[in-house]
Amino acid sequence: MEKMNIGFIGTGVMGSPMAGHLLAARYPVWVYNRTESKSSVLIEAGAVRGLSPAAIAAACDIVITMVGFPSDVEQTYFGEEGLIANSKQGTILIDMTTSSPALALQIYETAKASNISALDAPVSGGDIGARNAALSIMVGGDDEVYQRALPIFHVLGKNIERQGGPGAGQHTKMCNQIAIASNLLGVCEAILYAEKAGLDPTHVLRSIESGAAGSWSLSNLGPRIIAGNYAPGFFVKHFIKDMNIALESARSMNLLTPGLELVLSMFKQLAEMGEAESGTHALYKWLKIKSDTHL
Amino acid sequence: MEKMNIGFIGTGVMGSPMAGHLLAARYPVWVYNRTESKSSVLIEAGAVRGLSPAAIAAACDIVITMVGFPSDVEQTYFGEEGLIANSKQGTILIDMTTSSPALALQIYETAKASNISALDAPVSGGDIGARNAALSIMVGGDDEVYQRALPIFHVLGKNIERQGGPGAGQHTKMCNQIAIASNLLGVCEAILYAEKAGLDPTHVLRSIESGAAGSWSLSNLGPRIIAGNYAPGFFVKHFIKDMNIALESARSMNLLTPGLELVLSMFKQLAEMGEAESGTHALYKWLKIKSDTHL
Repeated sequence: MEKMNIGFIGTGVMGSPMAGHLLAARYPVWVYNRTESKSSVLIEAGAVRGLSPAAIAAACDIVITMVGFPSDVEQTYFGEEGLIANSKQGTILIDMTTSSPALALQIYETAKASNISALDAPVSGGDIGARNAALSIMVGGDDEVYQRALPIFHVLGKNIERQGGPGAGQHTKMCNQIAIASNLLGVCEAILYAEKAGLDPTHVLRSIESGAAGSWSLSNLGPRIIAGNYAPGFFVKHFIKDMNIALESARSMNLLTPGLELVLSMFKQLAEMGEAESGTHALYKWLKIKSDTHL
Repeated sequence: MEKMNIGFIGTGVMGSPMAGHLLAARYPVWVYNRTESKSSVLIEAGAVRGLSPAAIAAACDIVITMVGFPSDVEQTYFGEEGLIANSKQGTILIDMTTSSPALALQIYETAKASNISALDAPVSGGDIGARNAALSIMVGGDDEVYQRALPIFHVLGKNIERQGGPGAGQHTKMCNQIAIASNLLGVCEAILYAEKAGLDPTHVLRSIESGAAGSWSLSNLGPRIIAGNYAPGFFVKHFIKDMNIALESARSMNLLTPGLELVLSMFKQLAEMGEAESGTHALYKWLKIKSDTHL
């Protein structure tokens, strides 16, 4: 049996290596990116260039999207030139963008009305996870569709879980971002405290990272903060996007998230301070500047 | 050479197993506890009962204190009946209580004026760490004194680090508690979000705990929250004590800790709600109750 054609829309820092893994696994891959140059490497590696989402939809059996903001997802899926209007019946559309759970549900239902299947399948693991095909993939949608898409997910990631019906993947990613947000604040406060107290923060990490204070952020971002290295990692501007989605979603469920709200408000100020393109651990800078100037 | 006499003041849930390990290592151990019955098991195991901190000081070469609040530490060290007034020259006093860095410095200087040495050496690892002699020990004080006390620390713990001069041990413990505080809030918000969104939170943990959201609290306290098991662990009332010390210390250094302040304010309400004797992960209850009633 011939392998299905896979469309890949959004070949940025995450999408490029992911589409590359699918090519390496000998799937026929069609790619589209708004900025054409970003898919040139994939074309050279054997991908076919699609001229629009509509063209990708017409040519492919499965279409993966990995774009930026929920507004980009909407544009890609809806309208006359969108994926849903131009896909064949039976196509599977998989949005791997971190986006709104409510939008995932809307895509699922709109697609279903045209006999098209949709999964929401955001990931964690960042660009390194994407390059190493080691992403965690959190999937929402029908189990039967998930089972059909599973061989593709296995090409892209390692920790793959269907979390429930449509939107459940995005909701799970929101849990991930919510847990990260407050933890990151604690890590930054602890490191700044250590420095203000005249301690060697690297030495402090040795005492605390293996115990109850231990976390991925403390062990992985702590040393970068101490070294003054704020290269992303994960961009401040993208984390703001995710926290906005999480907060809106939490509010729609009448859930109080005071930690998330606090951290989001700090990140908005951080972006205004010119740190939108820094890594999320630049939150430390907010604390330091505010502490040094609030007297 | 005969082994030094070790005094142990405060034989509660932490101090008891710690003193027991010293006995097992064949040190002569003198014990004192305000509530006499709490040291009975140690007496049966071969410890000598001291009738007061002053009596312990008179009999011992090294005195370890593991009491409750900074006010208990003050009472034990200062005044006519205190450790400093009644210790021989050359004695080493080691406060392993989680207490104020400023108080540690005050003890160090007062003791030094009488040719008595003092270390601050708070621990992490909880009652399980104490029982398994697996505590992390964070030490402040003179290096020469630290070196002399090191064989004793090795009986009690595993990850032993001198972090600097007097107060540095307490400051390090504050870093530990600050990192825990905000992280715990993120963990509770994430789990409640998962439940409100209709996800299976145990399943969500499988997706997120191995990645950037991963932490000791998520993996160890998350399952207890999901199971509705709020047994301590670490008591709400003790964490409030620690966070109060950390906040006071941070303020004295002009350090802003918005995460710590937020979590402390929530914990104070949690204690008023009758949860002072619960484990710290009862913070989840605050979120759930407030979310369900704030409409």
